[in-house]
Amino acid sequence: MTARLLALRVREAQRSLALCGSAQRDKALHAMADAMIAAQDNILVANIKDLHLARDKSVAETMLDRLALDAKRIEGMAQGLRDVAALADPIGQIDGMWQRPNGLRIGKMRVPIGVIGMIYEARPNVTSDAAALCIKSGNGVLLRGGSEAIYSNTAIATALREGLRQAGIDPDCILLIEDTSREVARDMMGLTGIIDLLIPRGGASLIKTVVETSRVPVLETGTGVCHTYVHADADLDMALAIAVNAKCSRPSVCNSMETLLVDKALRDWVPMVCRAMADKGVVLMGCPEVCAAFPDAQPATEDAWDTEYNDLVLNIRLVNGLEGALVHIRDHSTRHSECIVTRDYDTSRAFINRVDAAAVYVNASTRFTDGGEFGFGAEIGISTQKLHARGPVGLAELTTVKYLVLGEGQIR
Amino acid sequence: MTARLLALRVREAQRSLALCGSAQRDKALHAMADAMIAAQDNILVANIKDLHLARDKSVAETMLDRLALDAKRIEGMAQGLRDVAALADPIGQIDGMWQRPNGLRIGKMRVPIGVIGMIYEARPNVTSDAAALCIKSGNGVLLRGGSEAIYSNTAIATALREGLRQAGIDPDCILLIEDTSREVARDMMGLTGIIDLLIPRGGASLIKTVVETSRVPVLETGTGVCHTYVHADADLDMALAIAVNAKCSRPSVCNSMETLLVDKALRDWVPMVCRAMADKGVVLMGCPEVCAAFPDAQPATEDAWDTEYNDLVLNIRLVNGLEGALVHIRDHSTRHSECIVTRDYDTSRAFINRVDAAAVYVNASTRFTDGGEFGFGAEIGISTQKLHARGPVGLAELTTVKYLVLGEGQIR
Repeated sequence: MTARLLALRVREAQRSLALCGSAQRDKALHAMADAMIAAQDNILVANIKDLHLARDKSVAETMLDRLALDAKRIEGMAQGLRDVAALADPIGQIDGMWQRPNGLRIGKMRVPIGVIGMIYEARPNVTSDAAALCIKSGNGVLLRGGSEAIYSNTAIATALREGLRQAGIDPDCILLIEDTSREVARDMMGLTGIIDLLIPRGGASLIKTVVETSRVPVLETGTGVCHTYVHADADLDMALAIAVNAKCSRPSVCNSMETLLVDKALRDWVPMVCRAMADKGVVLMGCPEVCAAFPDAQPATEDAWDTEYNDLVLNIRLVNGLEGALVHIRDHSTRHSECIVTRDYDTSRAFINRVDAAAVYVNASTRFTDGGEFGFGAEIGISTQKLHARGPVGLAELTTVKYLVLGEGQIR
Repeated sequence: MTARLLALRVREAQRSLALCGSAQRDKALHAMADAMIAAQDNILVANIKDLHLARDKSVAETMLDRLALDAKRIEGMAQGLRDVAALADPIGQIDGMWQRPNGLRIGKMRVPIGVIGMIYEARPNVTSDAAALCIKSGNGVLLRGGSEAIYSNTAIATALREGLRQAGIDPDCILLIEDTSREVARDMMGLTGIIDLLIPRGGASLIKTVVETSRVPVLETGTGVCHTYVHADADLDMALAIAVNAKCSRPSVCNSMETLLVDKALRDWVPMVCRAMADKGVVLMGCPEVCAAFPDAQPATEDAWDTEYNDLVLNIRLVNGLEGALVHIRDHSTRHSECIVTRDYDTSRAFINRVDAAAVYVNASTRFTDGGEFGFGAEIGISTQKLHARGPVGLAELTTVKYLVLGEGQIR
């Protein structure tokens, strides 16, 4: 069946979902969790098939790790569904109505966006995470996962659909496209008016392709070339702790630091921070002054400053005060998360006002840019675009609004 | 100079605008208004040139009316600039910060989007209206108006830029592209990363072209195939007044009614509403039952139900209760503004919940879908898309947010 026909089925099914109350959608999420647990054996068998084929294709070890499921991971996915059920329902919410001089009452009500298309790589957990957030927010979801996880995704989607059925909701609110060819993904990108929003999740090249090709609106998630600028007046113990945390606590994610900017006034501190990083196994790429101060650092190429390593590699550069830091960030930031460490009030204010990014930090690790850490309960990704949603994308960002206008016969 | 180079100039200039306080931006708006008045003669001479050329090209009378300026219209444009200055500043606003268990304080601050591209037709007032809203909201604007108004637009933009200069703001925050070829518009649509948002204003075909072609995010404004459904339990005097107002008060605009849906139970009322419309000069296109009840009505073709007439033409159709109305609206609405007239509480609730549109009305004319009427002070158009902004687009919708995260050394 083509992407178009599948999307139309989701669209039709979503119409009734949009009218379900919170209680029924939450019941469905719990039924989906139960169905996942009940289908555990099927899912694990399917996953073994995927892993077997992936090993035959010599897929990288890190990808195999993301692909592999076990009972604990399936329980984690089911718990994720239950956690989303426990969140506040954004749908139907009206933050307030105002009255116009002519007596009209006007308010903005949160409603589902409609049909969300997910294009993602070989992480089977995205199948259930995305479905959880979409169902909670009243949206239908058309899933197109990577070929490496197709058997796992199919087994998971079957379980999720069974959960919907048990809760009396049309199972077509969740549909997985079993054809994993590029043509199908491309077809999805052309379904304006049928798919309302496309969310790509995966590596930079997948996201770039979708952003550049799609005619359907796209929510651009997550490349993060994040900086930490250590100001001359920083608490250096704090700066060291924040820098090490931002780089090393989980280097593979988008909110980790790629470049450390050190104020020229702190030249003497460079060997200490470099040593701390090196002790954690971090490979250092430095500007000439950093390389001179710490001989183990390699010279950073011009490309290095724009690279999201997602690994234990760090650029370090000396900059000329706040202005130097701001210019570097302006020219190299992907506008994800940017941090200053300082004790100076005016400098902190200037950094906040002048840095253009989804999240601007003072004296905290950029690793906090995350829906859970921000208090949203769950997220479907971090938006690095400016329109519709910026930063962690939670349930509220998966909704739109309609204006209600209540009158007693007003004419104009 | 190419669109790209001009857009880069706007982008550079906008950086300093984003850091101006409210007072300086408001001062600039007043200076722009004064400069418009001071340049009145230049603008009128330029406008005569445009009108002259337009007449030679046998441009339609309605377009000439939109193109023509006089002292009163220029004063109106200047007043528009002053009115926007008087609105509350959205920039820098933080609606509240919350504290996480680890002590981090997080808030969302409104910031300018960046560079807005406007592609519009032969209405010189759009030049100053768009500039007013963009400068107030801290955005730079690259204007590309229609060829028919090029001399008027150039004279207006020159005055607006002079106002910026007098207020100490880089005049390149407002740039008009003097080349009105299609290629230039097309170039603008490819400037991802330089133009942040494109707003097309004009006829349906212009908007369609931009939506389908642009790689830059687009704010889709305004085609309105708006419906009014008169429920069996309606107050018929109210229904008549609302229907006549929705069709006749200003038929050329997007929030006017194109189709009146009458409940089958009100079959006997059809001749009365048809007569009232005909008396106002409205040409009626009816379903077979309406044509039988009112012989002056012409049979509506299948296309008629999807047509935005923008004129004194109205489709009328009998529908089978609320369900019949909802199906018709679902299949033919452009999701702009939809109205029900009823005295029945449950029916009003069902209509509100089930109609998918930017604005849903109970017992009031759809003509109120307008930034001014909603209390926003001004608008740049009515969005009929679901993402980022839906309904009247005012100052708030011309902003994005950044998260501020304030810590005391928190790491994860």
